[in-house]
Amino acid sequence: MSETPFDLALIGIGIGNPDHLTFEGAAAMRNADLIIIPRKGEDKADLADLRREICARVLDGAGTQIAEFDLPTRDADGDYLSGVSDWHDAIAAVWTETIASAAPRPKKVALLIWGDPSLYDSSLRIAARLDPQPSIRVIPGITALQALCAAHRIPFNDVGAPVLVTTGRRLRERGWPADADTVAVMLDGACAFQSLDPGGLTIWWGAYLGMDGEMLFSGPLSEVGPDIVATRAEAREERGWIMDIYLIRKLARAG
Amino acid sequence: MSETPFDLALIGIGIGNPDHLTFEGAAAMRNADLIIIPRKGEDKADLADLRREICARVLDGAGTQIAEFDLPTRDADGDYLSGVSDWHDAIAAVWTETIASAAPRPKKVALLIWGDPSLYDSSLRIAARLDPQPSIRVIPGITALQALCAAHRIPFNDVGAPVLVTTGRRLRERGWPADADTVAVMLDGACAFQSLDPGGLTIWWGAYLGMDGEMLFSGPLSEVGPDIVATRAEAREERGWIMDIYLIRKLARAG
Repeated sequence: MSETPFDLALIGIGIGNPDHLTFEGAAAMRNADLIIIPRKGEDKADLADLRREICARVLDGAGTQIAEFDLPTRDADGDYLSGVSDWHDAIAAVWTETIASAAPRPKKVALLIWGDPSLYDSSLRIAARLDPQPSIRVIPGITALQALCAAHRIPFNDVGAPVLVTTGRRLRERGWPADADTVAVMLDGACAFQSLDPGGLTIWWGAYLGMDGEMLFSGPLSEVGPDIVATRAEAREERGWIMDIYLIRKLARAG
Repeated sequence: MSETPFDLALIGIGIGNPDHLTFEGAAAMRNADLIIIPRKGEDKADLADLRREICARVLDGAGTQIAEFDLPTRDADGDYLSGVSDWHDAIAAVWTETIASAAPRPKKVALLIWGDPSLYDSSLRIAARLDPQPSIRVIPGITALQALCAAHRIPFNDVGAPVLVTTGRRLRERGWPADADTVAVMLDGACAFQSLDPGGLTIWWGAYLGMDGEMLFSGPLSEVGPDIVATRAEAREERGWIMDIYLIRKLARAG
């Protein structure tokens, strides 16, 4: 299969507040012939709406086409990594089909990426599966980690100290790391912090960051941990979905 | 000492490319009565120029005052953490003085922060020393980590895997961490990667990211490490300063 190659811009759009968009991101959107947007599937309806809102704001008069596509669902059975790999193949096929269906055939395609295209996002890995390979450009965007720290007005790191950025699954499997007194946890569907001994740990948690209904909790993990578990379950039930993230820090020992 | 308190916005402005600014950051700048900008000291002249350029672009007609101040120098002798703490006290005093000198007395003050106010930046700790305490707002900005990954078009993390964000000093002292196969290194003035056994490690390095003269190197650490050390020394000599950052990943073992 040999087609005219195209340019592909992966544009980080921040995580809920349309004003997270950078001037670089807006310019790349206006420069595109076609923007493809996931409509449903693992993506949440609110998030598809947010992408449409950003397009409406930014593309005024730019003549950029928008095409929506349905995200394939991921097979949750079997090996995690091979399931992810198959899913990425399926998404690459849908991207290819969506782009091929656009008329006139676009030379510059853009994808709007939740957060930043490099942080716990699969777009680069999916793009690597496209054949022929487009020329790829990555435009960074505000991440949930940054929105969390901003909302709580806390530094990500202690002075000169490291932070482990990890996932809920990994935190549960491995426990508290040896190399850092701060852990930032993403992709946690099940409050993995419950697996930790909460003594001496402080948590800063946020959900729906930057969006209507933003929720923030912070304090000693032993005290606020149970509140977070309960509030998270309620909010998820009520809204139908939740995206949350947290940072946990060991307090410096006195003395 | 009791003065009229003010609002203080810590605005992340990205790291070299003025288009890294977000719409939220631009609105917060225009909303400020006074923006204070470090003129020299540990800050580099090119960076002060960049802040002025961003102000010129964004503030057109907004009536925001700009005041520059000289950053105190940090005492590099003695204990690192107490030296940093004294330095933060000195900077807080200069901020207070700069703000008090503005006429009319500002109600909304903003600081433009290189990168993001939460990532290896001291502004929140300095602001905590102000008396009376202003009301603080943090606006996230694109970090060097994100610009590095975007420039190299690489994911920050492997699928579902953690990353340790750390400093050059720490990497040299502690060696490769137990908890992550990817390490992102900031604040490294001395190419700490030279202390690692390079076998099986791949490095992605960048300097002056987003700026004129951006430099990128990537490849097996054993091969490109020495090139980075030499190129970095030359560039620093020629330009008078350097800001660089890198990510190192252990290759997944075959099999």
